[in-house]
Amino acid sequence: MIHDVVLLGAGNLATSLAVALSNAGFPILQVYSRTVESASKLANLVGAEPICKLESLRTSASIYIVALPDDVIASIVSVLPELKGCVVHTSGSTPMSVFEGLRAKGFGVFYPFQTFSRSKIVPFSNIPICLEASNDECYASLEQFASKLSGTIVPMSSEQRRWLHLSGVFACNFTNHMLALAYQLTTEHHISFEVVKPLVEETIRKAFEGNPALYQTGPAVRNDIQTMERHAQMLKVFGLADLYKELSLSIQKLSGSDKGLKNRT
Amino acid sequence: MIHDVVLLGAGNLATSLAVALSNAGFPILQVYSRTVESASKLANLVGAEPICKLESLRTSASIYIVALPDDVIASIVSVLPELKGCVVHTSGSTPMSVFEGLRAKGFGVFYPFQTFSRSKIVPFSNIPICLEASNDECYASLEQFASKLSGTIVPMSSEQRRWLHLSGVFACNFTNHMLALAYQLTTEHHISFEVVKPLVEETIRKAFEGNPALYQTGPAVRNDIQTMERHAQMLKVFGLADLYKELSLSIQKLSGSDKGLKNRT
Repeated sequence: MIHDVVLLGAGNLATSLAVALSNAGFPILQVYSRTVESASKLANLVGAEPICKLESLRTSASIYIVALPDDVIASIVSVLPELKGCVVHTSGSTPMSVFEGLRAKGFGVFYPFQTFSRSKIVPFSNIPICLEASNDECYASLEQFASKLSGTIVPMSSEQRRWLHLSGVFACNFTNHMLALAYQLTTEHHISFEVVKPLVEETIRKAFEGNPALYQTGPAVRNDIQTMERHAQMLKVFGLADLYKELSLSIQKLSGSDKGLKNRT
Repeated sequence: MIHDVVLLGAGNLATSLAVALSNAGFPILQVYSRTVESASKLANLVGAEPICKLESLRTSASIYIVALPDDVIASIVSVLPELKGCVVHTSGSTPMSVFEGLRAKGFGVFYPFQTFSRSKIVPFSNIPICLEASNDECYASLEQFASKLSGTIVPMSSEQRRWLHLSGVFACNFTNHMLALAYQLTTEHHISFEVVKPLVEETIRKAFEGNPALYQTGPAVRNDIQTMERHAQMLKVFGLADLYKELSLSIQKLSGSDKGLKNRT
């Protein structure tokens, strides 16, 4: 059973996670970060010891959570001492095998599928936590641990996780970009972006009723060539005409209605 | 003052609008549609007379709402008789000038900025209604009328409206497509699409805190070339690699971080 935590990382995810762990009653023994400042800032928030050298790492915690940028996980793991607890990382795109060779009770992945901000502590209760472990005992501990934080625990292989991570680029990063472009188009024409909010909320509500492709609306899916051409023309000044055409074509491909457009060109 | 309505159209928007009007206490005298079946279906729902010939149109209603597809508005308008009330259409991309030459008390636009479904009556209370009118008296009537349906009334020129309509393609149609692709990527890998929902909800919540471009996250905005290349590689089998690259480049352009990518190629 997991009863205390060492956290490696002090970024957005680590901060929200540390607060959630603290609220759930898990003592955080240490917070590691490359700089004393960031280690101290988060450690002070949750009553942990800040460390910025891995030699200072206590080796008897029941879980070590590596919440560091993807590109430094492997190098940190390679210099970890022998640890008595389980070691997990929080990365969507890093396979569990990054831990192979590590001397520990077990290892695994604890991947909270959410976007974390600097400015806001995101509560964990609603966040799906995707779990993977090197052995059953480690998985059982992780599952019990994660269930103290969230109501949604999802067992997931490394292969599935990298696809979920990529889905998140569409669902979060690209969706945000679509809204950023809508913001640009409205505010440039002196229209409050708030006017767009009910439309987006209804779009999201509908999308999760099933397969969003079945609820696709707009000029592309009905192959309204005249409107699409007018839109592309309007968007030239924003440098967005090509993106508009690519997105429209992608909608038509997914809906199987791209025959019309193909005949056209 | 507007006290009764004739509705031209019986589609998704017309249906939600008719129900909202009915609930707000406005008698709907007639519902026009090209076919008797669709006219009757909606007319029966709201206690109106179904008509499918414009010769049957009563000329004394205080408002005529043309909720027909964009490409038929002009031709319908050209054959309307002289009308005692105001005439409006509900189209985002049709200028108010489509009504020029019409013999009526006034004309204008009543554009509810929302996506309407066949399967669900969408309540109007939360929908921004964008208004434009040919004269002050008609605008004042429209404003009073619209305020019985919605708490958000937005005066808007034809020029602004076509940009808002185009913003809606990004905020609704393209956003839905991003979610449709996330659905495809998750379900193909046996991951429930529900796992994605909290991420999308948090993305939307953040986006409306200000300019969404300022909250952009993901590999593109941090110019994480290695991750972007891995993602593009993964997406080849889905035919989505080019779209991924276009979207990533567009994120970089908007954030001004496209220098790195340009140097790269």
